[in-house]
Amino acid sequence: MSFSQIDRRSFLGVAGGALLCTIGGQKVYLNQKADVEKLATGVTIPPKVAAANKNPGLVKAAAVTGNRKEYWIAAEQRRWNIIPANSNGKKRDQMLNQTIKKGKTSFTAYAYRQYTSGFGEPIGEATVPGPLIEANVGDTVVVHFRNLCPVPVTMHPHGMFYSNEMDGAYKGYWTDPGGFVQTNRDFTYVWECPEGTEGTWMYHDHGPMDPIPLYKGLFGPMVIRDPNETPPDKEFFVGFHSFLPPATGLPAAFDCVNGRSFTGNTPTFQANIGDDVAFHVYALDDNFHTFHIHGHRWKEPGGAIVDNKTLGPGDSFRARFIEDNPGRWLYHCHVFSHLHNGMSGWYLVE
Amino acid sequence: MSFSQIDRRSFLGVAGGALLCTIGGQKVYLNQKADVEKLATGVTIPPKVAAANKNPGLVKAAAVTGNRKEYWIAAEQRRWNIIPANSNGKKRDQMLNQTIKKGKTSFTAYAYRQYTSGFGEPIGEATVPGPLIEANVGDTVVVHFRNLCPVPVTMHPHGMFYSNEMDGAYKGYWTDPGGFVQTNRDFTYVWECPEGTEGTWMYHDHGPMDPIPLYKGLFGPMVIRDPNETPPDKEFFVGFHSFLPPATGLPAAFDCVNGRSFTGNTPTFQANIGDDVAFHVYALDDNFHTFHIHGHRWKEPGGAIVDNKTLGPGDSFRARFIEDNPGRWLYHCHVFSHLHNGMSGWYLVE
Amino acid sequence: MSFSQIDRRSFLGVAGGALLCTIGGQKVYLNQKADVEKLATGVTIPPKVAAANKNPGLVKAAAVTGNRKEYWIAAEQRRWNIIPANSNGKKRDQMLNQTIKKGKTSFTAYAYRQYTSGFGEPIGEATVPGPLIEANVGDTVVVHFRNLCPVPVTMHPHGMFYSNEMDGAYKGYWTDPGGFVQTNRDFTYVWECPEGTEGTWMYHDHGPMDPIPLYKGLFGPMVIRDPNETPPDKEFFVGFHSFLPPATGLPAAFDCVNGRSFTGNTPTFQANIGDDVAFHVYALDDNFHTFHIHGHRWKEPGGAIVDNKTLGPGDSFRARFIEDNPGRWLYHCHVFSHLHNGMSGWYLVE
Repeated sequence: MSFSQIDRRSFLGVAGGALLCTIGGQKVYLNQKADVEKLATGVTIPPKVAAANKNPGLVKAAAVTGNRKEYWIAAEQRRWNIIPANSNGKKRDQMLNQTIKKGKTSFTAYAYRQYTSGFGEPIGEATVPGPLIEANVGDTVVVHFRNLCPVPVTMHPHGMFYSNEMDGAYKGYWTDPGGFVQTNRDFTYVWECPEGTEGTWMYHDHGPMDPIPLYKGLFGPMVIRDPNETPPDKEFFVGFHSFLPPATGLPAAFDCVNGRSFTGNTPTFQANIGDDVAFHVYALDDNFHTFHIHGHRWKEPGGAIVDNKTLGPGDSFRARFIEDNPGRWLYHCHVFSHLHNGMSGWYLVE
Repeated sequence: MSFSQIDRRSFLGVAGGALLCTIGGQKVYLNQKADVEKLATGVTIPPKVAAANKNPGLVKAAAVTGNRKEYWIAAEQRRWNIIPANSNGKKRDQMLNQTIKKGKTSFTAYAYRQYTSGFGEPIGEATVPGPLIEANVGDTVVVHFRNLCPVPVTMHPHGMFYSNEMDGAYKGYWTDPGGFVQTNRDFTYVWECPEGTEGTWMYHDHGPMDPIPLYKGLFGPMVIRDPNETPPDKEFFVGFHSFLPPATGLPAAFDCVNGRSFTGNTPTFQANIGDDVAFHVYALDDNFHTFHIHGHRWKEPGGAIVDNKTLGPGDSFRARFIEDNPGRWLYHCHVFSHLHNGMSGWYLVE
Repeated sequence: MSFSQIDRRSFLGVAGGALLCTIGGQKVYLNQKADVEKLATGVTIPPKVAAANKNPGLVKAAAVTGNRKEYWIAAEQRRWNIIPANSNGKKRDQMLNQTIKKGKTSFTAYAYRQYTSGFGEPIGEATVPGPLIEANVGDTVVVHFRNLCPVPVTMHPHGMFYSNEMDGAYKGYWTDPGGFVQTNRDFTYVWECPEGTEGTWMYHDHGPMDPIPLYKGLFGPMVIRDPNETPPDKEFFVGFHSFLPPATGLPAAFDCVNGRSFTGNTPTFQANIGDDVAFHVYALDDNFHTFHIHGHRWKEPGGAIVDNKTLGPGDSFRARFIEDNPGRWLYHCHVFSHLHNGMSGWYLVE
């Protein structure tokens, strides 16, 4: 069942829904607003974080080996419209050719934003999901992270090798500085890509307010390539997630692909006949999903041929195939209530 | 959690449950009745469908190559009893040896029905699931489809290769004629089975009323065989799905295998020692399931030995093994609330 | 969505939640207390069980071949504290460094307990999960089972080969004696481990009161080893499950690892650099989960490299890798509401 489908009546009603988390002793329900800044006042600074604030030299980082892949990324607040109006001022679901009646669809998101070297200039806007982090096996990824959000947040990578200090996870008393990056502070993550880390991954906030900042938009795609493998011609990154009342303050809940809801607002991917195509798919919410593309299928590492695959929170995989089928196709989560609450998009092949 | 377990009180109560979909601007809740014919009045005929109605020559279809596997299949209304009474007039759960107190269990289903060539004579009754569609790699499947239901419905195949016009999916403005087959109209689907399409699949309605017609019974099993592989001696098709209030109009919800609920009503499969057995398993509802057989296990394509496997909506797989264990066995979904709401059956081996 | 998160208000409220099961004609809801002893009065003794009670010689068992792995295991009642207080009298979540406000956390569990030969002496206390059952391919496992619980319970194994009489499953009229072991009775299960049964498995109650006794604690880990494979240096068994109101009589619900909730109470696993490590993971509740370890990844049988894996009720798998990363790591279910309701723990590497 999709908890993403909560009615306005539940939203305005008293507590009693399902619990998302407890932060600073305060319960956060899936179907109710939460004030993340107020919740943050219940969280104290862990001792290793306090110590590193005074003496930044206490932070240990691995030596950079191989190619240095360097990123400057900030976590920022920005207005985010889950369903932007089209040129006629309508919010539309192209798959069902209908106008969406969801009420307000904009909120103050948290989003990762890439900058040029030394945080010189922003490279485009902050986005949900955040910028692609990519590396080859053998590289070292160095992420200079700046927190411009009003609560402590982090970057936690999947798949890569990273030393304990670099996991970007809040761990209570034992939290390392990278697991609790305070407002207006920087932290440099050093993540390694030895053999055996190749694959489709993601990164996301895993700080003391987890999972609210992630639900407000703090996640992004990551890929580590095997240099012995021919790279695909076209790559698409598909993040299945939800925008829920405790994170958005909106009464409606939204099932999303890459920060948007409903076909025409979610990404429209494009490829040509003959392209070697890779869909990198991951999920990050409280639901399980299946990824389905019409008119296509792919082979799993074990050899099974599939056109539909289950994935849960934190799972990621790659669907790779040679494009051989022109037309306007749907890709979507095959959970019917997710599909019909916005988790679908176009894939156009010429 | 199983939303299939909604109590009469919720059913009769006001809205506020989980949303299944929105059709023609009308919200359909998982725990409430829906009038699909009334909803259909909110849906307009897409332009390509209107054009093909006037000029059927506009529909493009692939040339038939290889063997032509030809089917005549209608979608029809029929009364369907989810839990037929036994010879003593009782509705029974044989697994728990108890009488089922579910209230009314019959409703007007939508079901696929196979006919002889040219829609000459029906081949048996319309059934949930519909008739097996089977082909070998290299074949072309031609399905002459007739819609005798009161709303537009379709046939959308998984796994097969099909050109964009043949995907049987409603796509709003861009809908092809095969994605919106109106009442009392025919459409001929041409689906291809090149190498790389072999496997266990399913087909289902994906028209403008999706997912309600599917939830009313419009789905069926499909298998594409590799001619280089020895065929199994016995094949069983297991469809995990739900009958829910918006589709049935019944207050209770039912977890089902192949259109029936509870052991003794769901299929009783039979095999003999030494048989090369294939269970083809698929799921089509809003829940995730696991398929488990007592006393048996099988090897996945990647080599893992399992006796229990997760599958979500749209997923399908084959469990194949040499039968070596006589007795009365249970097969079931291992989600306890699904098992105990009817998603189980007998497997008898002699 | 986690139904494990039900609020006190729902617990005390009227019916209308999701149904877990129906026993003896009585409905058991996920968010309400149930009286399993009272429910048991609605269940009658199946004929084969009654016959074997008079003539124990009617029970057929396979001959023991290979090594005889013999266990004496009782199912017993015991008080179980899901969140024991620490030395300061506080119930703590170490991951979030906060005090847990859950109210009462102790209840009368059902738990398996191992004894020395002939039920001579208990080997430690009854535990949730029960004792590890382990064997090599080629062995025969003989479990002398004694039911000291007030309702009929059983032991049902996954993965192993067992004849129909030995499946420990209630099957209504056709129930074998091993599927309905009454209070203060014994039953000897004989389970075989031929080639093709190697792997990570579990056992659990599957008697007439299923799934309540399992939800009260009657499950445990099981592993069958391939003698041609080098054994791991360190092995950890991770059971994801829930303690819910109908089983505990407590108003709160708990997401658990091995019978406990929240980091610091759940198992803290320890390994050393260079260890060949195996995590054996299984799930047994009504939810789907994903298993994630920070700073580590492993190769699936099919070759995919993952650090996060979906598993549903009854699923089990092994994550095996060479330990190469020192530190304090979290392992957890990546469903955020499960993680934050207690399904996480420490993994310490030196």
